[in-house]
Order: sequence, then structure tokens, then C-alpha cells
Amino acid sequence: MPNPSAAMLVIGDEILSGRTRDANMYHLAGELTEAGIDLREVRVVPDEKATIIEAVRALSQRHEHVFTSGGIGPTHDDITADCIAEAFDRSIDIRADARALLEAHYAKSGTELNAARLRMARIPEGGVLIDNPVSVAPGFVVENVYVMAGVPSVFRAMVAAVLPTLTSGARIISETLQVDRGEGDIAGPLGELARQYPDLSMGSYPFQKTTGSYGANIVIRGTDASVVQEAMSKLALALQR
Amino acid sequence: MPNPSAAMLVIGDEILSGRTRDANMYHLAGELTEAGIDLREVRVVPDEKATIIEAVRALSQRHEHVFTSGGIGPTHDDITADCIAEAFDRSIDIRADARALLEAHYAKSGTELNAARLRMARIPEGGVLIDNPVSVAPGFVVENVYVMAGVPSVFRAMVAAVLPTLTSGARIISETLQVDRGEGDIAGPLGELARQYPDLSMGSYPFQKTTGSYGANIVIRGTDASVVQEAMSKLALALQR
Repeated sequence: MPNPSAAMLVIGDEILSGRTRDANMYHLAGELTEAGIDLREVRVVPDEKATIIEAVRALSQRHEHVFTSGGIGPTHDDITADCIAEAFDRSIDIRADARALLEAHYAKSGTELNAARLRMARIPEGGVLIDNPVSVAPGFVVENVYVMAGVPSVFRAMVAAVLPTLTSGARIISETLQVDRGEGDIAGPLGELARQYPDLSMGSYPFQKTTGSYGANIVIRGTDASVVQEAMSKLALALQR
Repeated sequence: MPNPSAAMLVIGDEILSGRTRDANMYHLAGELTEAGIDLREVRVVPDEKATIIEAVRALSQRHEHVFTSGGIGPTHDDITADCIAEAFDRSIDIRADARALLEAHYAKSGTELNAARLRMARIPEGGVLIDNPVSVAPGFVVENVYVMAGVPSVFRAMVAAVLPTLTSGARIISETLQVDRGEGDIAGPLGELARQYPDLSMGSYPFQKTTGSYGANIVIRGTDASVVQEAMSKLALALQR
């Protein structure tokens, strides 16, 4: 059985303008691989209603799980919750349980739960809350879409809350061989090996040392550790010649 | 006249598996903003022919410029050039000028220009070469798609070669105000200001200090510096109250 497939939608003008360097994609990619879920596609879109709705619908139809980051704070550019509601033709309003979480939190610090902060309690109809142990305002799940915060510390906490609830596939085993030769020398034997093992994924990732010489990391991935090791041994042997 | 719109397509299993943290998106986003070109969408896709072709076609139709990174090296998983050819129904073969560049380069170091390295001279029919001052193997342009390497040092060099050739829009002026209050306190006045200035883009980017207290960077962007400054002054005044 193939692993479950997933997509990520990063929402935010600040990523596309180069103001902020996204950290959440790299984090989620590593966590999903660890959990045996294949991240198949990532899209980054601006804070624009029509664009977000279109992307949510497209990704939700194509993949088993969709993870979004960004746009669930209290300011006018935080429109993700409304877009998710519209993407799935659901109503949206301030919900009692989410409001109660915010009330308890802001009461402790004597902060006013004003209209802006209350926006963070707007949850599409039927959504299931995702716990936010960092700053309380919850994420939520609607159908197969997990809506999470963009602030990296909060995003990570939400991912940690969500991942154990997902059906995960077989864990992917990965072995890496670092080769101090240019990719052009490796490509022949590697291509031959890839043909011999169609079930394994093989990639070559070149680098240049500060001394100027070239090398590459060859990565072989698969679900059966013994097959991955067998292929890696053959590759090492082929490259020694 | 609105700024030209652009999209980026990041190609590579290594990004989606979490093995490599992409650096090219952040770099390109900053360079395009500086040049007055709006990066409107980024997609990250695996090394799979059908997926790459579909994304190239979709982005090429929607945006004035498309920039790709990754998949133009010598190994079997480097399939970007073939995908671009197929996306635009063009033939592809080893081209004399690209081959000559590689021959001259490898002759200098006494390295064999083998079949794998020659793959890097495969250019879709009618493509215009993009100079690679770092490791010689060229990128290329087909229609509105700029095909560049994934290795960050090479990607950056290719971006530097390409950007001056593009029609750029008005330069975007950006001003930032750091506020030591939670976003919930800022949201009201900021939303009001956004309604007053529909031509400006205003965003709020929250952070938490190591001391635990919250703050936000408010960013106002637009093409007219005096209007940006006027809006920023109004915001500062509103937040002092």
C-alpha cells in the first residue's frame, strides 16, 4: 500500500515578498517523512481570498491530508479561516469553545478580549480545534485540511498535536553516501542502479566544497531497509571501480 | 500599471522529503521585490514528469515570468529540461553551443565529457542559454520560463544574469514599525488604516521575545514613498493613543 499523500499550503504575503524566510515547510517536510506520509506538493500563496480558496480546493481534492500555515491571527490580513469556510461551503462564526479558551487566557494577563482578538475564535462550522499550547488561539481541522498558525513555534506545536492522529504509512528508510567526485562521474552507475531497483527512490545532491572541488550526496530511500542497504552496497562497489 | 507578476517552481524530491532546506525561494523573493516584480505564487513539486509539466503549463499561463530551480544536472533524476520541452511541445537534443561550453570547461580540468555530463547540453528547441559563471552548465529560457539550477550558488548567479533582462515594474517601497504590543491591540487601528489606503499593502507579523512578551512588525508597502510615509505616520499616531 502506498504511503498517504499530503500537501502544504503556506499563506502569506511576507513569504512572497522575501521579508520572511519560511521555516515551516522544512519542519513539516521532515516530520511527515518521519511519520511515513509523503509530502507531494507545496504551494505558497498571498493573503488573497480567491487564490487561497482555489488552492485549498485543489490540494484537498488531490491529497489525503492538507496542512496550511499562516493567516489565523487577529489582524485584517488574517483571512485563512474565512477562506476555508468558503472553500467547503460552510458557515463561520465565533464559536463558544474557542471563545472560552481565549477568555480564560486573556483574563489571566488582564488583557482585553477585544473584537480583533475575538476573530481568532471564528471557526468554520463543524471544525475540530487544534490545541495551541504556546499562545492559546486554536487551529482547526475541516475535512482533510489542518489549519495551523504561521508563527514557527506555534506551527511546530500544532504539528506535534496533529501528527499522532493521522494514519501513517510505512516509515521511509534513507541512506546517504557522500562521494568526493563530480555528479557527472556518478550519473552512469546511479542511473543503472535506479533501473535495477524501480521501487527505490534515488537522488543525487551535488555540492561544492570551499576548496572548490565537487562532490555529491547520493540518497537511496525505500520502505525495506535490507533492500536499501543492498542497493547502497552495490552503488559503493560500482563507484570504487 | 500593475507590476509584472511572477511565479517560482521549485523542483526536487529533496525539498519535499525535508532532506534539504530550500534557500532559493527566499533569495528570489527578495530579488524580485527589489526589481519591482510581484512574486505571486510558489510551487514545490517532486522529480516527476507529469507533475512538473502540469505545473509549468499552469504557471506559465497565469504569470508573466516563471522561474524554476532544480533538476538540470547530469543524473537520472534531472528531468527538468525534458519536461520543459514537453510542456511547450518542443523537441530537445544536445545543442552545439551548450556542448561547446562543456567541452571547453572539462578539457581544462582533464575531465571526461561523458554521456551523463553531455545531458547538461540538452536544450529545448529555441531555448536561449542562461550563463553559469559558477559551474558552466547553462540554464535556459523557453517562452516565459527561466530554467535555473538548484545549487544555491549557481541559482543566484543565474538570477543575477537574468533579472536585468526583464521588464521591471515600479520599485516597491516598504516601511516597518516594530510595536511592543500584542497583535490584538494593533488590529483595530491597522484594519481602519487599510480601509483608508486600499492601494497600500499592510501586514502584521507577530513575534514573541525571549522574555515571553509579544510584539509585532507592521509593514506598509506601496509604490509611492510619500503615501507609504503618510500612512505610517497615521498608524504611529493611532497606536500612541
